Amino acid sequence: MRISELVERSGVPLPTVKFYLREGLLMPGTVTGRTRAEYGEEHLHRLGVIRALIELVGLSVQQVRRVLALTATPVGSPLELYGVLGAAVGTLPPEVPAGEASVAHPRARDALERLGQIYDPDYAAVAQLERAIAAAEASGVLLTDARLDAYGRAARDVARFDLDQLPPDPAEAVEYAVLGTALYEPLLIALRRLAHQDLAARRLGVSPSD
Amino acid sequence: MRISELVERSGVPLPTVKFYLREGLLMPGTVTGRTRAEYGEEHLHRLGVIRALIELVGLSVQQVRRVLALTATPVGSPLELYGVLGAAVGTLPPEVPAGEASVAHPRARDALERLGQIYDPDYAAVAQLERAIAAAEASGVLLTDARLDAYGRAARDVARFDLDQLPPDPAEAVEYAVLGTALYEPLLIALRRLAHQDLAARRLGVSPSD
Repeated sequence: MRISELVERSGVPLPTVKFYLREGLLMPGTVTGRTRAEYGEEHLHRLGVIRALIELVGLSVQQVRRVLALTATPVGSPLELYGVLGAAVGTLPPEVPAGEASVAHPRARDALERLGQIYDPDYAAVAQLERAIAAAEASGVLLTDARLDAYGRAARDVARFDLDQLPPDPAEAVEYAVLGTALYEPLLIALRRLAHQDLAARRLGVSPSD
Repeated sequence: MRISELVERSGVPLPTVKFYLREGLLMPGTVTGRTRAEYGEEHLHRLGVIRALIELVGLSVQQVRRVLALTATPVGSPLELYGVLGAAVGTLPPEVPAGEASVAHPRARDALERLGQIYDPDYAAVAQLERAIAAAEASGVLLTDARLDAYGRAARDVARFDLDQLPPDPAEAVEYAVLGTALYEPLLIALRRLAHQDLAARRLGVSPSD
């Protein structure tokens, strides 16, 4: 398709498409004339991914470039795929302040040990877990073992579902890991709040339409 | 205790304590002299709550005032308690743009119907659910019924645990609902990412210490 059709079908304005081309986020089309290039479905797909990462996930152009480079990383072994997936998800917010990235995370370590999970202090979410537990402690709402078990089990149920859908192709797997991690977090959060509402109404014996 | 001890034990600086007193977020102490007042454990507790709401949850002074007013609302019936809890949790981010607050939320309605839960378009989290589903759709990572079921079940498991801990005293219940909703969200998010990591390592047969 011509660039005009790409603009129309993607809904991304022409100046933005040209910007992504210049920045190397969108791969060039096939040159078919002095001022003409031909684009395919892969360009349309790529535009959708870039847009989701920038507009919905809130990544910067630099972060998007890093994620896209990871989708293009040749993956020769399961260990390499594991590393690429971790690096891709590590670009997502919340950003971990540099000072917290490579220090010990004692609360997170204890929690992960209790859950029987890997503790790798360099994995971005470990610092996030440390922060989350420290924040709860600071507020006086303690993280009991019973709560950790309940939350850990629920998180694992969701993660098992997510992993079952992981595409076998490494490039698609990276895309899915980044978009799926980021875009389904607000879903899980909203569903938790709505489950609170529903259970509270049932337990209190009220109907919101009263 | 004197105000100096309140400052020391709470870790909140004197000018900030005075600001909270002026703003009415912290209730006045008992006057014991021309320039003296006596503070108790309830002041220390209140300072911890204010601090958590502002520093950890990110609420504005106005939002904290609204939450604290709700903890002081006389609650005569379960329906009133249900309303107060909903209003308190409704002060939390993410803020719903005014234009989205009182419109129909067709995606959220369908999802909640499928889950067999209450659909109340005025409840803040409904607009959040609508946004989350729309964002996933826009990115091309569809929300399948199977995913909704898996996430809905996990959210409900967590919510059931949370509700089991709801304090019987209405003021404490409001505090717990607001702090517990906000402070345990990052925990659940971090645990999901770490469960992804752990499950990916197991399925790929790798050990991160390799």
